[in-house]
Amino acid sequence: MKEIIECVPNFSTSDPKAVEQILNELKGVQDAFLLDYTFDNYYNRLVVSFIGDKRSIFEAMLKMASKAIALIDMRTHKGQHPRIGAVDVVPFIPIKNATMDDCVKLARKFGKTLAEKHGVPVYLYGEAATKPERRDLDWIREGEYERLAEMIVKPERKPDFGPVKPHPTAGATVTGARKVMVGFNVNLGTADLKVAKKIAKALHSKKGGLSNVKAMAACIPEKHMTQIGMSITDFEATPLYRVFELLKVEASRYNVPVISSEFCGLAPLKAIIDVAVYYLKIDNLTVDRVLEIAVQKALERRKNFE
Amino acid sequence: MKEIIECVPNFSTSDPKAVEQILNELKGVQDAFLLDYTFDNYYNRLVVSFIGDKRSIFEAMLKMASKAIALIDMRTHKGQHPRIGAVDVVPFIPIKNATMDDCVKLARKFGKTLAEKHGVPVYLYGEAATKPERRDLDWIREGEYERLAEMIVKPERKPDFGPVKPHPTAGATVTGARKVMVGFNVNLGTADLKVAKKIAKALHSKKGGLSNVKAMAACIPEKHMTQIGMSITDFEATPLYRVFELLKVEASRYNVPVISSEFCGLAPLKAIIDVAVYYLKIDNLTVDRVLEIAVQKALERRKNFE
Repeated sequence: MKEIIECVPNFSTSDPKAVEQILNELKGVQDAFLLDYTFDNYYNRLVVSFIGDKRSIFEAMLKMASKAIALIDMRTHKGQHPRIGAVDVVPFIPIKNATMDDCVKLARKFGKTLAEKHGVPVYLYGEAATKPERRDLDWIREGEYERLAEMIVKPERKPDFGPVKPHPTAGATVTGARKVMVGFNVNLGTADLKVAKKIAKALHSKKGGLSNVKAMAACIPEKHMTQIGMSITDFEATPLYRVFELLKVEASRYNVPVISSEFCGLAPLKAIIDVAVYYLKIDNLTVDRVLEIAVQKALERRKNFE
Repeated sequence: MKEIIECVPNFSTSDPKAVEQILNELKGVQDAFLLDYTFDNYYNRLVVSFIGDKRSIFEAMLKMASKAIALIDMRTHKGQHPRIGAVDVVPFIPIKNATMDDCVKLARKFGKTLAEKHGVPVYLYGEAATKPERRDLDWIREGEYERLAEMIVKPERKPDFGPVKPHPTAGATVTGARKVMVGFNVNLGTADLKVAKKIAKALHSKKGGLSNVKAMAACIPEKHMTQIGMSITDFEATPLYRVFELLKVEASRYNVPVISSEFCGLAPLKAIIDVAVYYLKIDNLTVDRVLEIAVQKALERRKNFE
């Protein structure tokens, strides 16, 4: 594999059988490799991480999307995470020997093909967006699946590919290109969603919170807890410790304890290092000074000599 | 390279010219790769990390040791770190497709060859030790270079290889095999070495502190600070955050602020993850859920299929 591209599709399902069938589509594709997947019933959402090259990532993503469209019926879908369709969001991310432009081209090719094959309207977002406001996933997803029919006919909401009407069971799909980001969820020791929403608002960049942070609140009924679900789009500029410490400050206003946290998807090494550097006041820790990475890079240098 | 072994030799010098000449010996050896090196004038010590296979690591280590013996004169050496010789300690560490037994054999072969070639007495320590008390580096190094002549003639101190007298300029060498460990130094906002020594004592496993921790105090004259230098031999059992938090507790008794910290040598990924997991209360972070590692492992699986 010359280049490595990551794809992190989000599907609107948490049915274990559907999850299995969608993941199965990946297995048959040469040079496409599953890295991780998570799903839960309160978001009712499946998040998959996989890698491949330009060819394999496109083939695998198209197969998974086709399966998801066959299995998911948005008319009966309920979930706390905003969503517009069965194959809700499909970002392509450059990892190695691949550029953002490669990923933009992939997103366009994938969006065009999906629209043609299944009659699903497709929007381009992030670095692949055709208009500035469309860079923002939330802007595109406004009204969600339930109000898609009325939103899609507005001139400024015209899909980039496919029909100007929702697919009846699959809604619409958003695809695009972006940098690696951090998905991080924090569980709060309160079942009060109103309080959790206030804390989420205090963190959200567009609502007076931290740059590069999107935050939402959700209930986790089986645990009698609430959760702040966050995306940190530039985790080097806005490191994870800052997000977590500010969250603690805001939670303490309501005497709400922070119970635990989790990464949604994989954790970039730099994000973890920044946490250790902050709490232990470390002067000299970089990605290249991590044993496993230093060994890997030494072996790569060797391979290049051969 | 079928197997990967790490070697972390400690040399008794901080002369930049000597450092350069010792490191140069590594460059000529095929399949030996420098990962990291650090040296400072208060310890007056050079710590090198490099990797290779059984053949290249032996060849490179012997060349570096020979150069160090030619350059370093222990009769004029001063430094705050305990040391017994010019080539003070040479641990071999299994990293991949190598066993501890491979490293024990390497240490014996290296020790025997060094003794024969240069007339330096050599002790085996760690997993390569020939007697239980010799597993402990501190036991072997007791009396340091200055009292080596009187210690070496005691029956229980007989070297494993070489003459029963110190090499006049190179002292003695300790070599052996061990697991990956963490070297971690914490800088204190006091120039008072007595206080720093009390804090080091409170942390040291043999003096009532934490299991798996060795701690010593040193002055850093140019910074008007002191430093707690630590080795954590089993950083999974005694994670870094626990060491750091206990150090803060002990330092606060004397109103001494913790200024900064640094890894001595490379940082194992698990040690860093444990810090992030503790401070952010993360439920689901493992080495395999780090993006860079997950990508690396996926590509290795692919390679094995080819």
